[in-house]
Amino acid sequence: MKKVKIYITLKQGVLDPQGRAVQESLNTLGYSEVQQARVGKYMELLVDDNEEVEVKIEEMCSKLLANPVIEDYKYTIEEGVVQ
Amino acid sequence: MKKVKIYITLKQGVLDPQGRAVQESLNTLGYSEVQQARVGKYMELLVDDNEEVEVKIEEMCSKLLANPVIEDYKYTIEEGVVQ
Repeated sequence: MKKVKIYITLKQGVLDPQGRAVQESLNTLGYSEVQQARVGKYMELLVDDNEEVEVKIEEMCSKLLANPVIEDYKYTIEEGVVQ
Repeated sequence: MKKVKIYITLKQGVLDPQGRAVQESLNTLGYSEVQQARVGKYMELLVDDNEEVEVKIEEMCSKLLANPVIEDYKYTIEEGVVQ
Protein backbone atom coordinates (compact mmCIF):
# COMPACT_ATOMS: atom_id res chain seq x y z
CA MET A 1 0.00 0.00 0.00
CA LYS A 2 1.29 3.44 -0.87
CA LYS A 3 0.22 6.74 0.64
CA VAL A 4 -0.06 9.56 -1.87
CA LYS A 5 -0.25 13.14 -0.66
CA ILE A 6 -1.60 15.59 -3.21
CA TYR A 7 -1.41 19.38 -2.90
CA ILE A 8 -3.60 21.42 -5.24
CA THR A 9 -3.17 25.18 -5.41
CA LEU A 10 -4.57 27.91 -7.61
CA LYS A 11 -2.11 29.09 -10.21
CA GLN A 12 -0.33 32.37 -9.56
CA GLY A 13 -2.52 35.18 -10.85
CA VAL A 14 -5.84 33.37 -10.47
CA LEU A 15 -8.20 35.23 -8.13
CA ASP A 16 -8.73 33.45 -4.83
CA PRO A 17 -11.77 34.92 -3.04
CA GLN A 18 -11.66 32.24 -0.34
CA GLY A 19 -8.05 33.08 0.42
CA ARG A 20 -8.92 36.77 0.44
CA ALA A 21 -11.69 36.08 2.96
CA VAL A 22 -9.29 34.13 5.17
CA GLN A 23 -6.76 36.98 5.02
CA GLU A 24 -9.37 39.59 5.91
CA SER A 25 -10.76 37.51 8.76
CA LEU A 26 -7.28 37.03 10.18
CA ASN A 27 -6.54 40.76 9.86
CA THR A 28 -9.86 41.59 11.56
CA LEU A 29 -9.05 39.22 14.40
CA GLY A 30 -5.86 41.14 15.05
CA TYR A 31 -3.36 39.20 12.98
CA SER A 32 -2.30 42.19 10.93
CA GLU A 33 0.97 40.50 9.95
CA VAL A 34 -0.82 38.24 7.46
CA GLN A 35 -0.21 39.80 4.04
CA GLN A 36 -1.68 37.14 1.81
CA ALA A 37 -3.55 33.86 2.12
CA ARG A 38 -4.20 31.34 -0.62
CA VAL A 39 -6.42 28.33 -0.07
CA GLY A 40 -5.95 25.03 -1.83
CA LYS A 41 -6.82 21.38 -1.40
CA TYR A 42 -4.91 18.59 0.24
CA MET A 43 -5.72 14.94 -0.38
CA GLU A 44 -4.37 11.69 0.95
CA LEU A 45 -4.95 8.54 -1.07
CA LEU A 46 -4.19 4.97 -0.11
CA VAL A 47 -3.29 3.11 -3.27
CA ASP A 48 -2.49 -0.56 -3.89
CA ASP A 49 1.12 -1.21 -4.79
CA ASN A 50 1.78 -1.55 -8.46
CA GLU A 51 4.47 -0.49 -10.82
CA GLU A 52 2.74 2.34 -12.57
CA VAL A 53 1.41 4.20 -9.54
CA GLU A 54 3.19 7.39 -10.53
CA VAL A 55 1.71 7.40 -14.05
CA LYS A 56 -1.75 6.72 -12.63
CA ILE A 57 -1.49 9.46 -10.01
CA GLU A 58 -0.39 11.95 -12.64
CA GLU A 59 -3.42 10.96 -14.72
CA MET A 60 -5.85 11.17 -11.78
CA CYS A 61 -4.59 14.63 -10.85
CA SER A 62 -4.89 16.05 -14.33
CA LYS A 63 -8.20 14.34 -15.18
CA LEU A 64 -10.20 14.43 -11.99
CA LEU A 65 -8.63 15.98 -8.95
CA ALA A 66 -7.28 19.27 -10.25
CA ASN A 67 -8.39 21.64 -12.97
CA PRO A 68 -5.17 22.19 -14.92
CA VAL A 69 -6.51 25.41 -16.46
CA ILE A 70 -6.45 27.25 -13.13
CA GLU A 71 -4.74 24.89 -10.70
CA ASP A 72 -1.28 23.49 -10.13
CA TYR A 73 -0.67 20.22 -8.34
CA LYS A 74 2.18 18.44 -6.63
CA TYR A 75 2.29 15.04 -5.02
CA THR A 76 4.50 12.83 -2.95
CA ILE A 77 4.34 9.04 -2.82
CA GLU A 78 5.23 7.21 0.40
CA GLU A 79 6.14 3.54 0.07
CA GLY A 80 5.15 0.67 2.28
CA VAL A 81 2.28 2.12 4.28
CA VAL A 82 0.50 -0.42 6.49
CA GLN A 83 -3.22 0.24 6.62
CA MET B 1 8.41 37.81 4.97
CA LYS B 2 7.75 34.22 5.94
CA LYS B 3 5.75 31.66 3.98
CA VAL B 4 3.60 29.42 6.14
CA LYS B 5 2.16 26.22 4.69
CA ILE B 6 -0.76 24.80 6.64
CA TYR B 7 -2.21 21.32 6.16
CA ILE B 8 -5.60 20.62 7.70
CA THR B 9 -6.98 17.09 7.75
CA LEU B 10 -9.96 15.41 9.33
CA LYS B 11 -9.06 13.40 12.41
CA GLN B 12 -8.83 9.66 12.03
CA GLY B 13 -12.31 8.21 12.51
CA VAL B 14 -14.24 11.29 11.42
CA LEU B 15 -16.48 10.53 8.44
CA ASP B 16 -15.27 12.15 5.22
CA PRO B 17 -18.07 12.09 2.62
CA GLN B 18 -16.08 14.27 0.22
CA GLY B 19 -13.17 11.86 0.36
CA ARG B 20 -15.54 8.95 -0.11
CA ALA B 21 -16.96 10.65 -3.23
CA VAL B 22 -13.45 11.17 -4.60
CA GLN B 23 -12.60 7.53 -3.98
CA GLU B 24 -15.77 6.30 -5.67
CA SER B 25 -15.29 8.59 -8.65
CA LEU B 26 -11.72 7.37 -9.10
CA ASN B 27 -12.84 3.74 -8.82
CA THR B 28 -15.60 4.37 -11.37
CA LEU B 29 -13.11 5.95 -13.75
CA GLY B 30 -11.07 2.75 -13.66
CA TYR B 31 -8.60 3.52 -10.88
CA SER B 32 -9.56 0.50 -8.82
CA GLU B 33 -6.28 0.61 -6.91
CA VAL B 34 -7.45 3.59 -4.84
CA GLN B 35 -8.52 2.12 -1.49
CA GLN B 36 -9.17 5.31 0.43
CA ALA B 37 -9.23 9.05 -0.15
CA ARG B 38 -9.36 11.76 2.49
CA VAL B 39 -9.78 15.40 1.56
CA GLY B 40 -8.34 18.25 3.58
CA LYS B 41 -7.35 21.86 3.17
CA TYR B 42 -4.04 23.40 2.27
CA MET B 43 -3.25 27.05 2.90
CA GLU B 44 -0.31 29.26 2.17
CA LEU B 45 0.07 32.45 4.16
CA LEU B 46 2.57 35.25 3.66
CA VAL B 47 3.35 36.70 7.06
CA ASP B 48 5.52 39.65 8.10
CA ASP B 49 8.66 38.69 9.96
CA ASN B 50 8.42 38.94 13.69
CA GLU B 51 9.60 36.92 16.61
CA GLU B 52 6.41 35.27 17.65
CA VAL B 53 5.26 34.02 14.27
CA GLU B 54 5.09 30.44 15.48
CA VAL B 55 2.90 31.32 18.48
CA LYS B 56 0.61 33.38 16.24
CA ILE B 57 0.31 30.65 13.63
CA GLU B 58 -0.55 28.10 16.29
CA GLU B 59 -3.25 30.46 17.56
CA MET B 60 -4.66 31.18 14.08
CA CYS B 61 -4.88 27.47 13.30
CA SER B 62 -6.69 26.56 16.49
CA LYS B 63 -8.97 29.62 16.56
CA LEU B 64 -9.89 30.24 12.95
CA LEU B 65 -8.45 27.97 10.32
CA ALA B 66 -9.09 24.51 11.71
CA ASN B 67 -11.81 23.06 13.89
CA PRO B 68 -9.83 21.25 16.59
CA VAL B 69 -12.81 19.07 17.51
CA ILE B 70 -12.72 17.20 14.21
CA GLU B 71 -9.56 18.38 12.46
CA ASP B 72 -5.81 18.05 12.88
CA TYR B 73 -3.37 20.58 11.53
CA LYS B 74 0.31 20.77 10.74
CA TYR B 75 2.32 23.67 9.45
CA THR B 76 5.77 24.53 8.16
CA ILE B 77 7.34 27.97 8.23
CA GLU B 78 9.76 29.01 5.49
CA GLU B 79 12.07 31.89 6.28
CA GLY B 80 13.10 34.77 4.08
CA VAL B 81 10.53 34.63 1.31
CA VAL B 82 10.73 37.54 -1.12
CA GLN B 83 7.29 38.61 -2.30
